[in-house]
Amino acid sequence: MVGYGFMGAAHSHAWRTAHRFFELPLTPVLATLAGRTEATLVAAAERYGFAQTTTRWQDLVEDPEIDVIDICTPGDSHFEIAMAALAAGKHVLCEKPLANSVEESEQMTAAAIEARAQGTRSICGFSYRRTPALAYARQLVAEGAVGEIRQVRAQYLQDWLSDADAPMTWRLDRDKAGSGALGDIGAHIVDLTQWITGQRIDSVSGTLQTVVPTRPAAGTAQGLGGTGDASGERRDVTVDDLALFTARFDSGVLGSFEATRMAQGRKNAMRVEINGSAGSIAFDFERMNELEVYDATAPAGRQGFTRILTTEPEHPYAAHWWPTGHGLGYEHTFTHQIADLVTAIGEGTDPSPSFEEALQVQRVLAAVETSAGEGSSWRSTDPDTTQESTR
Amino acid sequence: MVGYGFMGAAHSHAWRTAHRFFELPLTPVLATLAGRTEATLVAAAERYGFAQTTTRWQDLVEDPEIDVIDICTPGDSHFEIAMAALAAGKHVLCEKPLANSVEESEQMTAAAIEARAQGTRSICGFSYRRTPALAYARQLVAEGAVGEIRQVRAQYLQDWLSDADAPMTWRLDRDKAGSGALGDIGAHIVDLTQWITGQRIDSVSGTLQTVVPTRPAAGTAQGLGGTGDASGERRDVTVDDLALFTARFDSGVLGSFEATRMAQGRKNAMRVEINGSAGSIAFDFERMNELEVYDATAPAGRQGFTRILTTEPEHPYAAHWWPTGHGLGYEHTFTHQIADLVTAIGEGTDPSPSFEEALQVQRVLAAVETSAGEGSSWRSTDPDTTQESTR
Amino acid sequence: MVGYGFMGAAHSHAWRTAHRFFELPLTPVLATLAGRTEATLVAAAERYGFAQTTTRWQDLVEDPEIDVIDICTPGDSHFEIAMAALAAGKHVLCEKPLANSVEESEQMTAAAIEARAQGTRSICGFSYRRTPALAYARQLVAEGAVGEIRQVRAQYLQDWLSDADAPMTWRLDRDKAGSGALGDIGAHIVDLTQWITGQRIDSVSGTLQTVVPTRPAAGTAQGLGGTGDASGERRDVTVDDLALFTARFDSGVLGSFEATRMAQGRKNAMRVEINGSAGSIAFDFERMNELEVYDATAPAGRQGFTRILTTEPEHPYAAHWWPTGHGLGYEHTFTHQIADLVTAIGEGTDPSPSFEEALQVQRVLAAVETSAGEGSSWRSTDPDTTQESTR
Amino acid sequence: MVGYGFMGAAHSHAWRTAHRFFELPLTPVLATLAGRTEATLVAAAERYGFAQTTTRWQDLVEDPEIDVIDICTPGDSHFEIAMAALAAGKHVLCEKPLANSVEESEQMTAAAIEARAQGTRSICGFSYRRTPALAYARQLVAEGAVGEIRQVRAQYLQDWLSDADAPMTWRLDRDKAGSGALGDIGAHIVDLTQWITGQRIDSVSGTLQTVVPTRPAAGTAQGLGGTGDASGERRDVTVDDLALFTARFDSGVLGSFEATRMAQGRKNAMRVEINGSAGSIAFDFERMNELEVYDATAPAGRQGFTRILTTEPEHPYAAHWWPTGHGLGYEHTFTHQIADLVTAIGEGTDPSPSFEEALQVQRVLAAVETSAGEGSSWRSTDPDTTQESTR
Repeated sequence: MVGYGFMGAAHSHAWRTAHRFFELPLTPVLATLAGRTEATLVAAAERYGFAQTTTRWQDLVEDPEIDVIDICTPGDSHFEIAMAALAAGKHVLCEKPLANSVEESEQMTAAAIEARAQGTRSICGFSYRRTPALAYARQLVAEGAVGEIRQVRAQYLQDWLSDADAPMTWRLDRDKAGSGALGDIGAHIVDLTQWITGQRIDSVSGTLQTVVPTRPAAGTAQGLGGTGDASGERRDVTVDDLALFTARFDSGVLGSFEATRMAQGRKNAMRVEINGSAGSIAFDFERMNELEVYDATAPAGRQGFTRILTTEPEHPYAAHWWPTGHGLGYEHTFTHQIADLVTAIGEGTDPSPSFEEALQVQRVLAAVETSAGEGSSWRSTDPDTTQESTR
Repeated sequence: MVGYGFMGAAHSHAWRTAHRFFELPLTPVLATLAGRTEATLVAAAERYGFAQTTTRWQDLVEDPEIDVIDICTPGDSHFEIAMAALAAGKHVLCEKPLANSVEESEQMTAAAIEARAQGTRSICGFSYRRTPALAYARQLVAEGAVGEIRQVRAQYLQDWLSDADAPMTWRLDRDKAGSGALGDIGAHIVDLTQWITGQRIDSVSGTLQTVVPTRPAAGTAQGLGGTGDASGERRDVTVDDLALFTARFDSGVLGSFEATRMAQGRKNAMRVEINGSAGSIAFDFERMNELEVYDATAPAGRQGFTRILTTEPEHPYAAHWWPTGHGLGYEHTFTHQIADLVTAIGEGTDPSPSFEEALQVQRVLAAVETSAGEGSSWRSTDPDTTQESTR
Repeated sequence: MVGYGFMGAAHSHAWRTAHRFFELPLTPVLATLAGRTEATLVAAAERYGFAQTTTRWQDLVEDPEIDVIDICTPGDSHFEIAMAALAAGKHVLCEKPLANSVEESEQMTAAAIEARAQGTRSICGFSYRRTPALAYARQLVAEGAVGEIRQVRAQYLQDWLSDADAPMTWRLDRDKAGSGALGDIGAHIVDLTQWITGQRIDSVSGTLQTVVPTRPAAGTAQGLGGTGDASGERRDVTVDDLALFTARFDSGVLGSFEATRMAQGRKNAMRVEINGSAGSIAFDFERMNELEVYDATAPAGRQGFTRILTTEPEHPYAAHWWPTGHGLGYEHTFTHQIADLVTAIGEGTDPSPSFEEALQVQRVLAAVETSAGEGSSWRSTDPDTTQESTR
Repeated sequence: MVGYGFMGAAHSHAWRTAHRFFELPLTPVLATLAGRTEATLVAAAERYGFAQTTTRWQDLVEDPEIDVIDICTPGDSHFEIAMAALAAGKHVLCEKPLANSVEESEQMTAAAIEARAQGTRSICGFSYRRTPALAYARQLVAEGAVGEIRQVRAQYLQDWLSDADAPMTWRLDRDKAGSGALGDIGAHIVDLTQWITGQRIDSVSGTLQTVVPTRPAAGTAQGLGGTGDASGERRDVTVDDLALFTARFDSGVLGSFEATRMAQGRKNAMRVEINGSAGSIAFDFERMNELEVYDATAPAGRQGFTRILTTEPEHPYAAHWWPTGHGLGYEHTFTHQIADLVTAIGEGTDPSPSFEEALQVQRVLAAVETSAGEGSSWRSTDPDTTQESTR
């Protein structure tokens, strides 16, 4: 595994835990943790349960004992590590975003396709897909529970930048993070809505804003936290902290999207709602064990949103855990991801989301940025369409 | 009163009821009901408690005994009636939208301003403002409870057109209604967000869609209901049934707006959320007696959205009704409107929303339509700015 | 109408409004308002729309023009007025509780049965039955939607006595009110659960408490409010402010009941939940336009509580009001009560709840008091069973 | 660890995980798993990560390498194992209930007190105390956030026995389980309310019912599930499936309690509400990451229940996990329990809940059973009071 921040903690927990609750064809072993800073690296490896450490991620690629490379670093290093890992025939789990540019993502996707032919598996870490409620939502839509889709509504609301004195972090630096709220959290709702509906976004009209344009300089803190230093110096935020866009799916359906870190009081309100001719589905990650489903075919008078606790044996992943009504937490999405990845590797199948799917997300985000830079005019997400969308 | 459909029922109830619960300087008397169809008109007058009827609305204007004319007809007749009433020195309550075009609205506003100099009062029926929770929201924002506003989020979600076989009504006919979901329900959230924030929307980027483009021909049914006839003939829906737009307020704050009749399961989900540096406010009309307030200045650990039942004596209008916890219903917004209007007339002050305010809403809606017709490019709501918004 | 406090306002609104929204066989006319204090009485009559006033309630009984007598006074005067009214052949609407003792209630019931033979109608004002959601709940239970009932859970939670310095009112004086939280609000949940389940409570085990035993003396304020005087004198609260009891229905089903004015933050949380073999129903008056229904026969995975907005044409009373999603308020329960009463009078049928039903509620409350006084031992509600319940 | 059913999975996960997220003075090692059935035992040990197995739990007691014995078996074997373990100087984590009788619990408590003098630690597994929201609730009450406590309300609602054809399990057999809903789930709310309020229940009046008295015979299935055999034979359920009781705390405060497996649709609704003079606290385990807090000292108009997401660094345990808004799940309560236990062992302090506290819970449950057997008369929980409670 490369990287040991917040994502490293979640991934290593998943690697340690998946085979304790799922019947896996292979049993993961935490081999080597790679990072840049020797001191904190060793402590992290001990805490996370890795046998060895290295400050050269290349060691992982070169180690014949290592089968899987899990990339948990910021987006600017994904390309280099993933390309090397795939070239070396290592299975790759790459955190989202796939890379900081469409171009890099395209190359990574091409490499993943090539590697696939040799049996090398690759997956991008859109872990929210493995929330039981969302996996169940996809299943319901596929079964026709909402009928013909009429509309999509997705929001990812956070508030940790609402405080104008919250300090700079690498996530607010375009060079490191590539994008702001759009790329970091907007990416999830783009992926989820495409995955749940089974449709592809083909054009967008968007607006980006940096609501708080400067922030106190932080130390070297990596992660979500960090504390401003005492000097009073403020640095420019070089990414958006609010992204609004309208998307058109290839069926013609419109979706409204919002990714923000200005929504005071909303802590991790990743919301997805699908409205169809026969019903609707609504989800909010702040209540991740619940899915709301509306059935327009129910008898008149009996219609309403049904709050389903997705902890029943019938719900994806849930049978591996606790009795009904005993909820799961955030990290379970990662544990499910590892269970599915290890199963795929063992069975010789390709896990999802593939790099192709992650590239499509990347293209949507890039089109939003382009549109936002051109007065919100519609932009195609199709790489062969360079002109303004005609829709 | 002119018109006796769904709005006529609500307005007449308000006229009969306001002085029973509020101390008014004047006591309303329901004089004459005007309408086009003699038979149903007489029945309506009896039911609503009007002393007389007429099929000529002009009779109301000409009747020296009548002080107030309440216009509850579809938007295409507002202009003619209101202009005549104002010219005759009658106080006017005009249902929203003010008119079906900005041009008509401008003339009506000019007439209202002129009449005001003679002590003639005018008000546009954005009755949702009189929901206690929303009036309280405005008060809280004015008091600084949310601090500096960072973001606005507004949705008006209904589902009665989600069924592709719901029949045509006058609300789906551009000639009658002027606009679809945008003008009928989007107007409310434009008015409310401007009113609650005390800010004006100065430019927009929008998208309109007619998700279901044809519908079964209806009989002569007027109102929300009606039944398709048996012939199987389908007519073109000439207005939008889904409107999505991004708005920029004059402070630079962005707002995301959605008005839809495709949101399966959402019956009357008019939602407004204001996020600020110090707090947030959230409202959903499906729970009209509740306001959610987040206080970011509360002690760490104690922060969260507080669900306020707006039935306490401290909440606007509430002290006139029942003990705490005993909720109000939809029609109370109209009763409050009449109470405020009669008080204004009695005290010689100008009630709100004025025609100017209603005109501003109209301009926002018109700019959304223009933007939608021009690839969602940004459009100013300022009448003197004919070119594309430079923001 | 006799009495013009909080209940008088609600009742007179209902009398004025019912025929505006319901097709009634007769049109009510507000004739005479009776009360004790001339000055406030006249003002109330004007506000409520009564043509005349009297300080002798006997005048109503003696007036041949009056057909219905509506008793809105405290419980200690119900007996005398109702008996006289029934004897005079007037239809009677008597607020709950029917009387302050079982003995009086028994005589009133006997009188009502006798009068019924002459076509004189009587009804007790358990108005919450006319909440659309609760009327729908009863209908669902009758249709078998919950299967065999397994358990009943009912709470009526208020908090206005949680403040130890809230002043005395007649509702806290046993001589006037007969009982405290038990009789005033507990009565509603006893009535509702018996009515919704179609079962009768046949024995109880209860506990009463006066959590705050003394309160500041109030002036002559009548109603829920009133302000303590400055003298600092405190008076004894002679009724319970918290009642807890377990009830056994005649089917053997157990119910847990709670009536309290100590539930800080709960304003009018009248909650009823019925659990059955095939489903459940849950209601909270703080969200009176919603009913939660669980269907255990729904497909596995799809089960959950469905939040039904009871504003659809299929729901009791709702078709007479507004479009779907536009909620009703507290006073609508009274308007529905008048609509049903006037319909019954016009059609020559007996309205519900009858005095027999109200008497049965009274017997349950009396048995709770007896049980509470005897160490919570089980007590039969059956008048012929004087000994301790053998269950 | 002894036992490897549902609780064994939760406990072993906690032992493996606690030191990965908490700084512990000692690092747990999973040594030996004891159980009765060789085949399933070995598979469980492998899955849970134990190095060895034994079918003699005595081996754990005798093994000098083992420091802690974790007892996850049904209640009927707790006594024997715990007594032996304490005698051998092993620290003991004993699942609740402490034992199946008060007498056994008393002896175990005496043994624990004696062992404590030698530095041997003991704890009873009321793991729900370690839910961040509930630990925070206790903290708020201790800080005076609710003022003087007026009332307690607690429910533990499940529905898995609502189906009359759900098969027999050891949990429904008095010989194994000791008690039914009362002892299995009622015990939690007794413990929690005493712990959160800091008060002791000193008398009770209760009613028990076995709503479904016979059930299909099951195979040898151990745990919550199991499938009825095909023979159609039904066996007697020898424990309650519904328990209702009123409790009086030593302050005189009344609490209403309910434990049921008949609440159709309620999956794991463990609810606790504390009402006080200055505020209230409400919790439902179905939304375990939320605590509702009402502050009666907030400005008039601003009062309401605040929904706190207990995922902030200020909330107990939360800082060790994920960013704000990223919820925890059921098993975290066990991980927190191990973290606290290992910390206590390392620091030489006594963890909570002690066996004394668990014994007090046991006495309350026993008093409920006694009361239920004696017509719900009040019973003291004090071991020295054998006669009927005089309150």
